[in-house]
Amino acid sequence: MAENITSRAEDYSKWYTDIVLNAKLADYSPVKGCMIIRPNGYAIWEKMQAALDKMFKDTGHENAYFPIMIPESFMKKEAEHVEGFSPECAIVTIGGGKELEERLYLRPTSETIIWSTYAKWIMSYRDLPILINQWANIIRWEMRTRLFLRTTEFLWQEGHTAHSNAPEAEEEVSRMLNVYAEFAEKFIALPVIKGKKTESEKFAGAIYTVCIEAMMQDRKALQSGTSHYLGQNFAKAFDVTFLNQSGERELAYATSWGVSTRLIGALIMAHSDDNGLVLPPKLATVKAVIVPIWKSDEERNIVLEYCKKIEGYLKEKDINYKLDDRDQYKPGYKFSDWEMQGIPVRIEVGPKDIQKNAVVLFRRDTMKKEFGIPLEKTGEEVLKLLDDIQNNLFNKALEFRKEFTFFVNDYEEFKKKIEDPGGFLVSHWCESPECEEKVKEETKASIRCIPFDEELRGSDGKCIVCGKPAPGRVVFAKAY
Amino acid sequence: MAENITSRAEDYSKWYTDIVLNAKLADYSPVKGCMIIRPNGYAIWEKMQAALDKMFKDTGHENAYFPIMIPESFMKKEAEHVEGFSPECAIVTIGGGKELEERLYLRPTSETIIWSTYAKWIMSYRDLPILINQWANIIRWEMRTRLFLRTTEFLWQEGHTAHSNAPEAEEEVSRMLNVYAEFAEKFIALPVIKGKKTESEKFAGAIYTVCIEAMMQDRKALQSGTSHYLGQNFAKAFDVTFLNQSGERELAYATSWGVSTRLIGALIMAHSDDNGLVLPPKLATVKAVIVPIWKSDEERNIVLEYCKKIEGYLKEKDINYKLDDRDQYKPGYKFSDWEMQGIPVRIEVGPKDIQKNAVVLFRRDTMKKEFGIPLEKTGEEVLKLLDDIQNNLFNKALEFRKEFTFFVNDYEEFKKKIEDPGGFLVSHWCESPECEEKVKEETKASIRCIPFDEELRGSDGKCIVCGKPAPGRVVFAKAY
Repeated sequence: MAENITSRAEDYSKWYTDIVLNAKLADYSPVKGCMIIRPNGYAIWEKMQAALDKMFKDTGHENAYFPIMIPESFMKKEAEHVEGFSPECAIVTIGGGKELEERLYLRPTSETIIWSTYAKWIMSYRDLPILINQWANIIRWEMRTRLFLRTTEFLWQEGHTAHSNAPEAEEEVSRMLNVYAEFAEKFIALPVIKGKKTESEKFAGAIYTVCIEAMMQDRKALQSGTSHYLGQNFAKAFDVTFLNQSGERELAYATSWGVSTRLIGALIMAHSDDNGLVLPPKLATVKAVIVPIWKSDEERNIVLEYCKKIEGYLKEKDINYKLDDRDQYKPGYKFSDWEMQGIPVRIEVGPKDIQKNAVVLFRRDTMKKEFGIPLEKTGEEVLKLLDDIQNNLFNKALEFRKEFTFFVNDYEEFKKKIEDPGGFLVSHWCESPECEEKVKEETKASIRCIPFDEELRGSDGKCIVCGKPAPGRVVFAKAY
Repeated sequence: MAENITSRAEDYSKWYTDIVLNAKLADYSPVKGCMIIRPNGYAIWEKMQAALDKMFKDTGHENAYFPIMIPESFMKKEAEHVEGFSPECAIVTIGGGKELEERLYLRPTSETIIWSTYAKWIMSYRDLPILINQWANIIRWEMRTRLFLRTTEFLWQEGHTAHSNAPEAEEEVSRMLNVYAEFAEKFIALPVIKGKKTESEKFAGAIYTVCIEAMMQDRKALQSGTSHYLGQNFAKAFDVTFLNQSGERELAYATSWGVSTRLIGALIMAHSDDNGLVLPPKLATVKAVIVPIWKSDEERNIVLEYCKKIEGYLKEKDINYKLDDRDQYKPGYKFSDWEMQGIPVRIEVGPKDIQKNAVVLFRRDTMKKEFGIPLEKTGEEVLKLLDDIQNNLFNKALEFRKEFTFFVNDYEEFKKKIEDPGGFLVSHWCESPECEEKVKEETKASIRCIPFDEELRGSDGKCIVCGKPAPGRVVFAKAY
């Protein structure tokens, strides 16, 4: 266990913060509730951005950029939207030394400013669909903040699309949810449950919201991405009409969808351990670190010479690596340092390995070493290991989720299980807001989603709270 | 000449705006002074980002992200800095429904928030250098705005580095200026003059500022990138000290450097013409567009079949292209449309070309066509053409700048030349702020830089204004 890291068993919440700070992923900022994303953390975000951006473009989307400042009057045009977001807004009242005539809200999300613009761009069905995404910073005033998970400013992407008919828009909502799920599973190695939010949990201004939910190591849920079907709500609010093929004026149909730097929090909480961060190889910029081991200056030269050969084999396979040849630190210190930072593979090499023309490979996920890897196989063995780590992290997280997913039919059992051991409780719900609220009040568990997966959803039954008929099961959990 | 575009000769300023709007690069926003960067414009920014980001990383920099909201007290810690930036700040006074205790400035630049953080991160010389860059949005309240060139919100990157000694920091200042110059010349095809700003033109809080300056087609100068040596000013303001190798406490040395979406304005104004945007191929996402020409449905099928072969040859050479097979528009309309958007190469193909097993290539920069290009050579000929266009744009801009760069020794001649034909006037200056100010008042020309180039700088002489001894020439111009 690493010195500066509180163990998960002792205090999960402190463990999380220790990892974030000690792996130099983020730091507190002088502005309450804001965070500084340090290079190690930002590098993960860049990898996430690159992968997601490609997936967005492959599904026909383009990037654009809309202003961060939104006139107060715009925010107020969609009734549910303003009610949901207004209380958490930061507001600019002074610009260029003068009190502003109209106050400007810093975007808590951009539906209003974007749909006010779409009104100018959309005339005919030929202008549709519009498939736009933006990468941006978002401000939501938060009272209780946690680095990456909930901060007053965060980074995200928000897709905003306009369509000429509802089925096409709904297809987009589902397409982007699938993109998020694929990204979470393939890149973050994070198994997710896809489903629909209840009325009380949906986006303010949406017809409905679909989401992906993941289980963290403390068995709580983390909402990891959402996709909203907005119907004609924003088109109505901003008067966005188009001439359809029959020559009639019609309101456009909208979707929006987003994921944020919160995903870095998900990554940390899903895979890391008491030794520090564990990075899924696909999101690691540095895939491997070479730590040379020597005792004398003579050995030092021999070992560093040998490292050049290792570097050659890594370059051959296009593996991004670091050579840690710092003189002022002992190997043991370097080991812990890179373990803390979550580098997937460590290549250790000392005089004995050189004698055998070999290297030692250490994998961060299991903390296990493989000895006597032939030098010339370093590149291909590291590649294999990276693949294996990526798969292992996913499978481990999936096993964990399975272990702590319970089909519960009795409310007393529910109340016990949600406390110990905790997890995803899959139970029937009658769809009444009252039963949903009662569970929340009594157990702090919320309905994470109405799952799409048929095995989870099951068939009809009796509501776990009131016993009335329920069309299927939903996923309850305590959540971040 | 395109219908919707005012000619440069008629009204250069209107021409610029027409290009921005008609090529769908940007749009006005409901918030005064802010802009919406549309997909066509953002695609250029993405290309710029990718190229610059690689150059930053190749020179050892990492990306990070610091909060957009800066406490008022931080802004006030560096006297010159606050004086320079405070009047143009937007200020948040309300957060989460409450009046804030301390007002928060939206970053007009991030020296203060970053150096307050460096105070936590820097303890010893071993923590140095810190080489951080961030991609971010910036707010500076502007009274007179122009799309891309001067807007209240814009996108940029800002490098902020900390060093243990002055020479290393100054080397960084110069290294990054060279990166900017290389980027401008290689990617934007924009020849630039490197030099130092005068005291009155330097960054608020800097010891000195160096810059790159480019000539636009109206012969005005556009400052296209700046790199600042900040000395120990910000370290002093935020108490950033480190233990040096002799075990003594010392203040750290700072640099900062940035370029912004203004570069898109530079790109437009340097190369575009009365038909629309002209994109340097290296910053074009779509390098070529295929426009099939047909009169009957039968021809349509034959031509579109032939296009598949063209597509094959383009894919072979990894050329990103678009096939414009829209039925509702005539070829002539499509030609103008793509010319407006500045796509470097157009491939035209009709039944006659197919008979000859050939294609027609059109290059956007010269608006010239080459007929009878053998089909199977399409890929390689387009590649050649792209290279040629890139070089031609640079050479044309360089020739233009040379044509309108005048070595002037007489103030009367200066006053005439700056009006007609305008351009860069290279004249001796005695280094007194009074003479600099006099020229500005009387001619609206400012000193763009004290050039590094020896041919421009020349040797000592007499100040063009007062006749007193001057150590060398400087570059005067009207500027954006």
